[in-house]
Amino acid sequence: MSGKNIVFLILLLFIPVSIAAHYLEWGDLTVFITAGLAILPLAAWMGTATEEIAVVVGPTLGGLLNATFGNATELIIALVALNAGLVNVVKASITGSIIGNLLLVMGLAMLLGGLRHKEQTFQPIVARVNASAMNLAVIAILLPTAMNYTAQGIGESTLQYLSLAVAIILILVYALTLLFSMKTHAYLYDVGIAETEENESHEKPNVMFWSIVLLVSTLLVAVESELLVDALEVATSQLGLTALFTGVILVPIIGNAAEHATAVTVAMKDKMDLSVSVAVGSSLQIALFVAPVLVIAGWILGQPMDLDFQPFELVAVVVSVLIANSISSDGKSNWLEGTLLLAAYAVLGCAFYFHPVVGGMG
Amino acid sequence: MSGKNIVFLILLLFIPVSIAAHYLEWGDLTVFITAGLAILPLAAWMGTATEEIAVVVGPTLGGLLNATFGNATELIIALVALNAGLVNVVKASITGSIIGNLLLVMGLAMLLGGLRHKEQTFQPIVARVNASAMNLAVIAILLPTAMNYTAQGIGESTLQYLSLAVAIILILVYALTLLFSMKTHAYLYDVGIAETEENESHEKPNVMFWSIVLLVSTLLVAVESELLVDALEVATSQLGLTALFTGVILVPIIGNAAEHATAVTVAMKDKMDLSVSVAVGSSLQIALFVAPVLVIAGWILGQPMDLDFQPFELVAVVVSVLIANSISSDGKSNWLEGTLLLAAYAVLGCAFYFHPVVGGMG
Amino acid sequence: MSGKNIVFLILLLFIPVSIAAHYLEWGDLTVFITAGLAILPLAAWMGTATEEIAVVVGPTLGGLLNATFGNATELIIALVALNAGLVNVVKASITGSIIGNLLLVMGLAMLLGGLRHKEQTFQPIVARVNASAMNLAVIAILLPTAMNYTAQGIGESTLQYLSLAVAIILILVYALTLLFSMKTHAYLYDVGIAETEENESHEKPNVMFWSIVLLVSTLLVAVESELLVDALEVATSQLGLTALFTGVILVPIIGNAAEHATAVTVAMKDKMDLSVSVAVGSSLQIALFVAPVLVIAGWILGQPMDLDFQPFELVAVVVSVLIANSISSDGKSNWLEGTLLLAAYAVLGCAFYFHPVVGGMG
Repeated sequence: MSGKNIVFLILLLFIPVSIAAHYLEWGDLTVFITAGLAILPLAAWMGTATEEIAVVVGPTLGGLLNATFGNATELIIALVALNAGLVNVVKASITGSIIGNLLLVMGLAMLLGGLRHKEQTFQPIVARVNASAMNLAVIAILLPTAMNYTAQGIGESTLQYLSLAVAIILILVYALTLLFSMKTHAYLYDVGIAETEENESHEKPNVMFWSIVLLVSTLLVAVESELLVDALEVATSQLGLTALFTGVILVPIIGNAAEHATAVTVAMKDKMDLSVSVAVGSSLQIALFVAPVLVIAGWILGQPMDLDFQPFELVAVVVSVLIANSISSDGKSNWLEGTLLLAAYAVLGCAFYFHPVVGGMG
Repeated sequence: MSGKNIVFLILLLFIPVSIAAHYLEWGDLTVFITAGLAILPLAAWMGTATEEIAVVVGPTLGGLLNATFGNATELIIALVALNAGLVNVVKASITGSIIGNLLLVMGLAMLLGGLRHKEQTFQPIVARVNASAMNLAVIAILLPTAMNYTAQGIGESTLQYLSLAVAIILILVYALTLLFSMKTHAYLYDVGIAETEENESHEKPNVMFWSIVLLVSTLLVAVESELLVDALEVATSQLGLTALFTGVILVPIIGNAAEHATAVTVAMKDKMDLSVSVAVGSSLQIALFVAPVLVIAGWILGQPMDLDFQPFELVAVVVSVLIANSISSDGKSNWLEGTLLLAAYAVLGCAFYFHPVVGGMG
Repeated sequence: MSGKNIVFLILLLFIPVSIAAHYLEWGDLTVFITAGLAILPLAAWMGTATEEIAVVVGPTLGGLLNATFGNATELIIALVALNAGLVNVVKASITGSIIGNLLLVMGLAMLLGGLRHKEQTFQPIVARVNASAMNLAVIAILLPTAMNYTAQGIGESTLQYLSLAVAIILILVYALTLLFSMKTHAYLYDVGIAETEENESHEKPNVMFWSIVLLVSTLLVAVESELLVDALEVATSQLGLTALFTGVILVPIIGNAAEHATAVTVAMKDKMDLSVSVAVGSSLQIALFVAPVLVIAGWILGQPMDLDFQPFELVAVVVSVLIANSISSDGKSNWLEGTLLLAAYAVLGCAFYFHPVVGGMG
């Protein structure tokens, strides 16, 4: 059994601990931390199970499965929080996930990979297609904020309609992106797939086993997300953190832990193509799939979920995309570029820490 | 006779129809639509006539002719509207033309070209020089808006002086761009020219004939522009459209129809160099030549025409330029990239549709 | 003796003249102009002395010396002005130095180099690393402004803490950048160094002589900076200039004169690598080293020096970085690209000239 799995088994112990903490009222802070830790191994197993099943069911269905379950942890946490009315935290976690994947995940991967390997390369073609899709998605998601900020007298219902229209366009674009990467131009993505396959055992995975793992992990993540979200409001205010900081920095670190581990591990094995794919692809999924689904879910749940973010979130996302583009566009990376991404994340983190309180969690 | 010419002859019938509609008072909406349709074949013939004459008079004079008459339709409509005092519509049509050429025209060309050809290539060198000139032009045009938005207490006369100063700098830059592309670095643009020439018949065009076509089309466009502008205010408010939406979306679609048709047709013939040239070149002409001429014309006509746009127009133009740069900078295109441009246009269109009313047409 | 040295000797005469002008009260305008002229040869000798000593003490220590003394003139003027309480002028001179190096210095170098040589090339790799570091630095420096502009109710002390945090992160990044360029990835910068060495005489420079030159020049620049700063407030208001225009346009032209001369001279000799290095490297030093040092110095001197700039300065810097990136990213330049940079500088200069007065000098 590998060291990773031992750590996972220990972390699993936090599932009963967090449930006990909840019912025995050990305090919201304890529930928040233990539930957060319990989610980590579950998220990792959801990821592994998805990939194993994807291998068996073939590239097309497998790609769809990956595309839908790839950010399942974030999506589940966000849906639970949305249902609990924590609209502001959910909104902030969308921008936070984008920022976190582009700066923290990619930065740490490039830094740790770059410390082992002098210069690492990855396919600039895929990086460029992704960058263009990312630019569009970010522009679309931030447009309602930009409009609300620059024009006077926009009603809440106008923002809601505009957000819905944007969400529908983005989901269409997401479907077309999948069509492009899995059907019409799949050959562009071949290298990445080949690298992934190297990792796989040559035995055929047991679909039944992995389906059960996927099902159980998904259910437990939902359960734990409930505990996490219930405890969130009190716990973070005990720590002196605002809703904005919680949503932008704290929630995405828990939700993206699995991508984080994957991206860093493969970067250290010099599989930079895959590492950048995971980081940028995850941001892309958040922007093109998770965010629109949350807008539509909010509309169905009767929660006022629109795409009107804090103006400073707009600044932070634009800045993250620009710096990630500038660093990844040449298809090369080194430790300094990783450091620059991390420094950008640190600077943004400081700014969000000092950002004045705006509204509450909901 | 080709199918295109038959369509043109049918559209020509709208010239007498629109005049009749005007004098017999069939309603402003009818006049607006018929005048809009009548302008399409005239714009196309103005373009053809300019190119034919350009072949005979040689590259230098021909280039100048192309540079001056290339966006003649937009310029005529805008001058007529400016003279009628529709300053807000004119301003919006400047940003709308830039957005429309970069996103709608280039997007449709890349999509339809990309459906026929797996991957299309074009010269990145020319794309880069154009992109840099475009960046400068957009920055210059939007600077008065940015200053008015970020600083307090700027007088109208200050904005007017700043706009005039910017206009003069831009016209100088435009002249230098022509010098660069036609004299000192003409060889960079050779491929594009060669592709154009393939299309030409090898007989020498009849200058006298095409001069008359150019003269008559130009006169008729002016006439029809008067009808269009007269009917515009009532017609668009009957359709429930704001001045901003009319200027940014509707007017540029009429004014740019010729470029639109050319860019898409040549893209489907896999002449992507020419297609991108037409789309980006047309945006560039709007920014470096049409906009400054309108500022100076407004000053002469005593209309308060400056470069102070709606802040959201600034956002839209910056966004369009960034995404067009990101997609065209690698000299390759495919159907997904075309779709991304069109999606960006759709999102911006929604936003302008929902944008609250600001002032009237004038 | 070369023509350059004769000009320098004549300019040296302005040292006694400016001191006389100060004590004999010939008027603040006279003191300002003569002190400005006196600084020019001193700045050049500080530069030469630093480089000569750097050759002897070896690449590591020499690189550190260059990194610290490279923008010594700006730093000294800014520290003197900061001590005199001219906080607004100091802040404006930071953004002005970045804008001036990227647009004016690089623009003039590309224009004059491009008039002699049809197309000039430079290493895109170094340009890219620099561009990424520049993007980060600019983002970090402008973040407090963006936060103050987009969020309501930020206290002065919050901005001060955020600025200090940003300053510390930037100085760390600067140290890591030096480590990268001088140790771990020095080979990327080899071409630039080889070109520099060509210029050097093959004799070993006299360290003692150059140390004395460095010491004396540094002292005299301090002296003259005092005169310049003392006279600045009255002199510029006599010329009808605002604190903003003085800080953004006037002070950086004096402070950057040495880089200016070097970048243009080597560009005309077709050493474009070195020319771009000087211009971008100098901007980078301002952003990663001079600005943070000034924030920390302001905190020590008890001056309210933070990184909260005029919002329009933020626009100007972002615009400069974008256009400089777009022009330098392909590793090629020509006279038109130089002209575009200069036109951007001219447009920004006009805007700052017309910018309404905000606060005084301090």
